[in-house]
Amino acid sequence: MLKYERIAQEINNSISKSEYNVGDKLPSVELFKSKYQVSKSTITKALEILEREGAIYQTRGSGIYVRNKKRNGYINLIKTKGFSDNLQGHQVTSKVLTLQIVNPNDEVRNHLLLTEKDSKVYYVERVRYLDNKPLCIETSYFNKNLVSHLDSKIAEKSIFDFLQSQLNINIGFSDIYFYIDFLSENEASQLSLNANDPCMRHELTFHTSKGIPFDYSNIVYHYKHANFFIPIKS
Amino acid sequence: MLKYERIAQEINNSISKSEYNVGDKLPSVELFKSKYQVSKSTITKALEILEREGAIYQTRGSGIYVRNKKRNGYINLIKTKGFSDNLQGHQVTSKVLTLQIVNPNDEVRNHLLLTEKDSKVYYVERVRYLDNKPLCIETSYFNKNLVSHLDSKIAEKSIFDFLQSQLNINIGFSDIYFYIDFLSENEASQLSLNANDPCMRHELTFHTSKGIPFDYSNIVYHYKHANFFIPIKS
Repeated sequence: MLKYERIAQEINNSISKSEYNVGDKLPSVELFKSKYQVSKSTITKALEILEREGAIYQTRGSGIYVRNKKRNGYINLIKTKGFSDNLQGHQVTSKVLTLQIVNPNDEVRNHLLLTEKDSKVYYVERVRYLDNKPLCIETSYFNKNLVSHLDSKIAEKSIFDFLQSQLNINIGFSDIYFYIDFLSENEASQLSLNANDPCMRHELTFHTSKGIPFDYSNIVYHYKHANFFIPIKS
Repeated sequence: MLKYERIAQEINNSISKSEYNVGDKLPSVELFKSKYQVSKSTITKALEILEREGAIYQTRGSGIYVRNKKRNGYINLIKTKGFSDNLQGHQVTSKVLTLQIVNPNDEVRNHLLLTEKDSKVYYVERVRYLDNKPLCIETSYFNKNLVSHLDSKIAEKSIFDFLQSQLNINIGFSDIYFYIDFLSENEASQLSLNANDPCMRHELTFHTSKGIPFDYSNIVYHYKHANFFIPIKS
């Protein structure tokens, strides 16, 4: 974790711990600077993270304010570091159903912009649990040119942590498409639900900071256990 | 519409019209500057809009690229100017069910941070249609201190257009919470569905650029007609 990420987390923790309320003014950049003994640009970067994630808002000239408190158990879709980071205070676990190297079909090739005939991808299928209750089924395709290694031990934890810390992949941007659908029999059994129960389907493509798609995923969410949050800045 | 908004729209149109493909490099800021005969900061602002809305991405040093093409009919939740702006090429219409000034209950007061006992709000209930098919039921509470006037004629069109152009309200940021639920009998009849059919419920609070909440809304989406998109930048 970089210095500004750590500071963002510390400020976020003090907001969560009710030291601040919605609409409260936070200390100025100058005060944060001397509190954490870092440069102005480090504080600015930390505040940018908090603003993007919806924890604070900044108004031109008049300061930094607390925006809202997280609703417990809601998944913040703007946070790109995965469920573990998102659902602090909750236990996130994963069961790996499949992990293998495959030749992708045309749909996957299109999403990952794979042009070479013999391109390979890691195919990973996981059921993810929130406090031991099934949250979603996630099927992911990772471009093997970028994601050179994966194994079940990694996939049981956070794949994104591994990509960032071990493979030095910088996550740049992602697209999420989503809609309501109904569960297949097989999906229902994985989520301990009934076939034709509703679900939310999320289709995601993650790109590196240089714009190369490295992960195309489909997530099927349990209709009772998944709640979402998006902070939007105009 | 401001100058940089107009330029953003023009660039967006040329991306939509297939003049550019995903991953294509766009002209440099300098070239856009001379094409549109505006300042660098106007171009920068236009590109910021397009980046936030997911149409382009910028990499440090190496340029501006086309990020993706809009999927037809998907609602981009990052766009804050309402459905009309979002669903260009489609017909968005509204039926106003209720529009009245009321005393808000405690829940609404909490969301709008209304502390005074005699605060009033506009309560608006609308069914919105996409190409004449029911898309959602929207119930909104507008803080009357900020939204001094509303009427059915305005509500049949875009309320947000009116707030921005006539009441000079600057939309700053918004929070969206959402999850799957089931329709009540009354909701089902408005959407031409059956009671207990699934739906997606969105709960939104919109704030001015100074951080004052002015609109608390609940939207119930038709499970077949509503598809969503969120572009995320890390």
